[in-house]
Amino acid sequence: MHQNYIVADPWSIVEEGFVPERFKSSESLFSIGNGAMGQRANFEEFYSGPSFQGSYIGGVYYPDKTKVGWWKNGYPEYFAKVLNAPSWIGINFYVNGELFDLNTCLKVDKFRRELNMKSGYLSRSFKCITWQGIALKVEALRFLSMDETELGVISYRVTALDQSVELKFEPFLDSGIKNQDSNWDDDFWKTTAVNHNKGRSYILAQTHKTDFKTCTYMYCELKVDQNKSQFDLAAEEENCLKVQSSVKLEKGQTAELIKYGGYTTSLNHSEDALVKAADRCMDIATAKGFDTLFNEQEKAWDTIWATSDIIIEGDVKAQQGIRFNIFQLNQTYSGKDARLNIGPKGFTGEKYGGSTYWDTEAYCLPFYMLTKNQEVARNLLVYRYNHLERAIENAKKLGFNSGAALYPMVTMNGEECHNEWEITFEEIHRNGAIAFAIYNYVRFTGDYDYLKEMGMEVLIGIARFWRQRVHYSENKNAYVMLGVTGPNEYENNVNNNWYTNYIAKWCLEYTLSQLEKLRDGAVEEYDRIKGICALTEIELEQWREVAAQMYFPYSNEHQIYLQQDGFLDKQLKPVSELQSDQRPINQKWSWDRILRSPYIKQADVLQGFYFFEDHFSLEELERHYNFYEPFTVHESSLSPCIHSIQAAKLGKMDQAYAFYLRTSRLDLDDYNKEVEEGLHITSMAGTWLSIIEGFGGLRIENDKLSLRPQIPEQWDSYRFKINFRGRIISAHVDRNGVELHLKSDIPMSLRVFGKKIELAPDKTIKV
Amino acid sequence: MHQNYIVADPWSIVEEGFVPERFKSSESLFSIGNGAMGQRANFEEFYSGPSFQGSYIGGVYYPDKTKVGWWKNGYPEYFAKVLNAPSWIGINFYVNGELFDLNTCLKVDKFRRELNMKSGYLSRSFKCITWQGIALKVEALRFLSMDETELGVISYRVTALDQSVELKFEPFLDSGIKNQDSNWDDDFWKTTAVNHNKGRSYILAQTHKTDFKTCTYMYCELKVDQNKSQFDLAAEEENCLKVQSSVKLEKGQTAELIKYGGYTTSLNHSEDALVKAADRCMDIATAKGFDTLFNEQEKAWDTIWATSDIIIEGDVKAQQGIRFNIFQLNQTYSGKDARLNIGPKGFTGEKYGGSTYWDTEAYCLPFYMLTKNQEVARNLLVYRYNHLERAIENAKKLGFNSGAALYPMVTMNGEECHNEWEITFEEIHRNGAIAFAIYNYVRFTGDYDYLKEMGMEVLIGIARFWRQRVHYSENKNAYVMLGVTGPNEYENNVNNNWYTNYIAKWCLEYTLSQLEKLRDGAVEEYDRIKGICALTEIELEQWREVAAQMYFPYSNEHQIYLQQDGFLDKQLKPVSELQSDQRPINQKWSWDRILRSPYIKQADVLQGFYFFEDHFSLEELERHYNFYEPFTVHESSLSPCIHSIQAAKLGKMDQAYAFYLRTSRLDLDDYNKEVEEGLHITSMAGTWLSIIEGFGGLRIENDKLSLRPQIPEQWDSYRFKINFRGRIISAHVDRNGVELHLKSDIPMSLRVFGKKIELAPDKTIKV
Repeated sequence: MHQNYIVADPWSIVEEGFVPERFKSSESLFSIGNGAMGQRANFEEFYSGPSFQGSYIGGVYYPDKTKVGWWKNGYPEYFAKVLNAPSWIGINFYVNGELFDLNTCLKVDKFRRELNMKSGYLSRSFKCITWQGIALKVEALRFLSMDETELGVISYRVTALDQSVELKFEPFLDSGIKNQDSNWDDDFWKTTAVNHNKGRSYILAQTHKTDFKTCTYMYCELKVDQNKSQFDLAAEEENCLKVQSSVKLEKGQTAELIKYGGYTTSLNHSEDALVKAADRCMDIATAKGFDTLFNEQEKAWDTIWATSDIIIEGDVKAQQGIRFNIFQLNQTYSGKDARLNIGPKGFTGEKYGGSTYWDTEAYCLPFYMLTKNQEVARNLLVYRYNHLERAIENAKKLGFNSGAALYPMVTMNGEECHNEWEITFEEIHRNGAIAFAIYNYVRFTGDYDYLKEMGMEVLIGIARFWRQRVHYSENKNAYVMLGVTGPNEYENNVNNNWYTNYIAKWCLEYTLSQLEKLRDGAVEEYDRIKGICALTEIELEQWREVAAQMYFPYSNEHQIYLQQDGFLDKQLKPVSELQSDQRPINQKWSWDRILRSPYIKQADVLQGFYFFEDHFSLEELERHYNFYEPFTVHESSLSPCIHSIQAAKLGKMDQAYAFYLRTSRLDLDDYNKEVEEGLHITSMAGTWLSIIEGFGGLRIENDKLSLRPQIPEQWDSYRFKINFRGRIISAHVDRNGVELHLKSDIPMSLRVFGKKIELAPDKTIKV
Repeated sequence: MHQNYIVADPWSIVEEGFVPERFKSSESLFSIGNGAMGQRANFEEFYSGPSFQGSYIGGVYYPDKTKVGWWKNGYPEYFAKVLNAPSWIGINFYVNGELFDLNTCLKVDKFRRELNMKSGYLSRSFKCITWQGIALKVEALRFLSMDETELGVISYRVTALDQSVELKFEPFLDSGIKNQDSNWDDDFWKTTAVNHNKGRSYILAQTHKTDFKTCTYMYCELKVDQNKSQFDLAAEEENCLKVQSSVKLEKGQTAELIKYGGYTTSLNHSEDALVKAADRCMDIATAKGFDTLFNEQEKAWDTIWATSDIIIEGDVKAQQGIRFNIFQLNQTYSGKDARLNIGPKGFTGEKYGGSTYWDTEAYCLPFYMLTKNQEVARNLLVYRYNHLERAIENAKKLGFNSGAALYPMVTMNGEECHNEWEITFEEIHRNGAIAFAIYNYVRFTGDYDYLKEMGMEVLIGIARFWRQRVHYSENKNAYVMLGVTGPNEYENNVNNNWYTNYIAKWCLEYTLSQLEKLRDGAVEEYDRIKGICALTEIELEQWREVAAQMYFPYSNEHQIYLQQDGFLDKQLKPVSELQSDQRPINQKWSWDRILRSPYIKQADVLQGFYFFEDHFSLEELERHYNFYEPFTVHESSLSPCIHSIQAAKLGKMDQAYAFYLRTSRLDLDDYNKEVEEGLHITSMAGTWLSIIEGFGGLRIENDKLSLRPQIPEQWDSYRFKINFRGRIISAHVDRNGVELHLKSDIPMSLRVFGKKIELAPDKTIKV
């Protein structure tokens, strides 16, 4: 059974009732972030029950010494881990001298948590009777400013319900923080200073090895009615700074504590200026005050939703699910900083190190590209361009040369972090996704300049890699690629993975075609890039040859491309014939059994058909879908979305909807029983794709937007917005057809169901 | 360059000169053992220079928590590690009150170390001038009694060369020991008592988790001329017990310390009886005294050499090499205890955990089988029989059922210890080697009773495993085996590894044939075993079907069996075309590059041709040898021996000799630059095979011994002895032919060069 305690609501994630067993799950689900930092929904006050503490700063990581059983040449020395950062949210309070702990209360009532996605804040409230028998109401509200990305704000209110009480508040900063997933139980942080000055508190801490310097700061205000109280220093400890203030509440009175806090880091400031930068944040915060900051937060989210909202009518759970996904993607990455990227768990947990995977290019890019200004998506591409040199070094380490580039499987700063040979060394198709993202970005945005300025160099490095990675097999009379792992990680070290061979061939051809276009259209740029890369005609000739003679495993009997050499030798029993107690196979079977089975973790051949759909007929797609889907166990969170899109394209709307359901509430309903560890951020982009590309049928055709909307039976209507080259187009789809609206000064043409349509500014058209 | 400091000598390993850089290497090479315990050649006295301390007790291990980067279902929780045991050899001494340390001496002269293989002892001597300027001579001699396997003996002599000195000896026991290769830096030992009583010292310590109880003991005597001194308790510390005795030496006088020490363990005694058992050892030692014990040691080794010596004339280094191998094999395993086995590093280091691999069955068994009474080899088979239930459990863990048995890749007590999926789960051919060893043992010894009593059950478990591990491929119209790793570990997760498929088919056929033999010859036994195993006729029918329809990859073009599916798609460039700076590839190349290359770590198809040589013609062998050897890098210590044997069989004596050289002095000359970590014990058996089966051409043909001796050009003659079914046969081979001698009361017939020969008792025959 999946969890189902999240209250259905179109704009909020809501938890009601005090059930400590689900708190770690809620800490993930109610996470907040602003693209620069993020945190799990931990309580502000002391809580002795189960909790998984987490606060993270984008780009601040620790190189945790590699842990493997058996070392293989080429393994990286370190795994770059997202760091659990010092915590600034803490607000302990004492009731008549006793530390308050929700876990020991005699009674808790009306416990409610809300993640308000419309306005971007987390709130929590409850009534309780403390173990001393005192009735209190607590209301906490917290947000991380989207505008001032170093600033977080908390309003924390305590009301005395049945008697007068003495309250002592003790807000604190804590840098005595560890990662739960530390390989060797290292300390990741070293605290260098703990200071309190004029009511403002600072902890300076730096990471071991990477030497990121951070200032964690706070400033607090306390009032009861109109009476303000001062905070005094309570303790300066080695890794902790506490201030305190006491008030007396009469029955019915409320004390409100406003806490401003956050981080300034050496990513954005010189070491000397960290405290000054923190002061600037506190200056702004105190000058504006809570209400203004809150209003600005609402406005910032209004702006985000204006270009990215999806409205589903007739299905509140689906509505909540898709908004949750869009919301979390926006909390994770804002696109303001090309050094940052999208970790699989964003700012919601430690797993996967918070680093960058090919998920970004294959799944996330379209979301940011079509819901934000194009600089945001461009920054994702710049990130990889900035790592080109390291990708070349990485390839060198594995025996490649002459500028061949292999982008890492997992990375923080461009260096490979992963340490499983079958993934690190063999799951090389990631290189293809990075090239595809360039192609995809250029066709959607029309930003051809990116190719000239940066993209061509990346493509050349990748093309060189593929050229060197294949060899000519006399036996097959073709170029073959041995020993790879495709997107379906339930196969390791296979030969001629069709997807990898296909994307390699495509990379070579695309690079050649773009070089040709450049030569014919901008010969100076062409010469410049050729010079930088020391590119020779012989290389180009080799690329042509490899692309022309690449081997693709094919079954004449089934008329399908084979996932890899020998796939048909497997025992081809469909998933439907597996007993349910055998699933998920990744929990029930040993690895060898999975590997020799025909079962597919996520789209592999079908992923290729998704990327390169123009290369194949609908009949071919249907044949391959019908062949492979029955063997697919979808045990990757990235699998259902691609299948949903393909099913929609094939008119199999029931299946498309079933796959959509599986992806859209993956975390809210905790299908994989692991949401405690954090959210599946990157697969959320896949959910969005299921609607936009799947149900909406959005494509680029001949440089124009094209839509072929369908609607699942279960919905009354849906509406989505996209930002296409600076214009906001919204589409409303119901059983009667499609209504389109353009928000722009300039008209545009697009295709709907293959028919050309003209959209006039601020007009609605019905198709 | 290889190391070459070991002085050539036919009967001893000798090191001359004081070169601390090579001490860790010498500590491995000069290791001593008696099959029950063993130790590296660490100094008795304090030494501040580099050293790798090691003392080991057979069968006493620690389950070290598994360390992997990424957990896979089915991995074992623990890796059973040979334990670095408490040390009993320590003898510190003080010269005029200063602790003696060879590392700080002003001068060291005539430093000499000898491992006397004829008599089984380690000796060491040197002259030195201490940093205080005092000239001393030190002579140490140490052995582990072959007869009293819980007892070790040290004679330690110090002579004052140029002045009178005050000497204080401080012999000690030390249980504050750690393994260098501990996964998590755990303590493996807990000391429970430190006692001294009537001149005898004891430390009781037990292993964490496994709770092996040990008593490490010592008793010391000191004399100068005929004057004996007493030892008094010096210190009882937490993990250390020291005694002391002081003497005054005049110039030219010698102090001699005799130390008796060793271990008694709960493997052989109840916990309460450990001290009593230690007392018994000390009773025996003091009653017999050093000289008697030393004479007994010489006699014990005489007995060993009488049935196992190989004499090479005209090549001292080859002579030294082969004796070293035979000596170390005898130090590692005596065959007295069926709970023990042969770790890849024996008692000479920590690597590979000291556990059992398929090396035992594939390489070591013939050595013990042909140089010792048959109980010794039988005990190696009993070891696996005793682990059958755990092999069945292990298979169950991986999804097999109904009594299918998968023996572990690495084990101490029958449980799998290894944790690399491509080995642990996929290198399943080990099961075949265990079956082959039963066949091999029975054909050599004629001990058919083993099959009835134990072997059949093992064979049935293994046959069941193979039956379940294959499946019928419609595509290939045959039974296929997907996702395996063959003996050549430079291929992982391949399909239809020829060797594995072949040995699987053979296992099924051999099991069927032996069941049939049993049914026809001993129907009661047959019924009993069928009952125990719940064996059905349907199963037998299935085995027949699988054996008959097994798939073997084959190249019509080359007329060879392919190592695995797709082998010919590789870039087939022979090793000779690799640049020398690219080798060894396991140090120079990343793992993926090795995997997709054609390069072979150790015999794979040729290993199958070795096991099943009667199944193939000489032409077939030659074709396969000529095809595969050029791709073989021999980066396993187990590769050259098989190639040497095959080359000899093909009459390629130059190659046979070259491969022999590579294996026979592998450790003495430290070809792999890793001898510091310990010796390659199991591959030493391969070296022995190279002479006996390779040059000597020894086989069993129709239940008779058969020889086809050849001699390498580089040798004048060689002589080997074997113990064949209780008879000692020695063969002397030179360029004129073969002389055979039989030590037995009963004549026997054998074949030499295919010709039947009658050997009369105690007569020599020339052929």
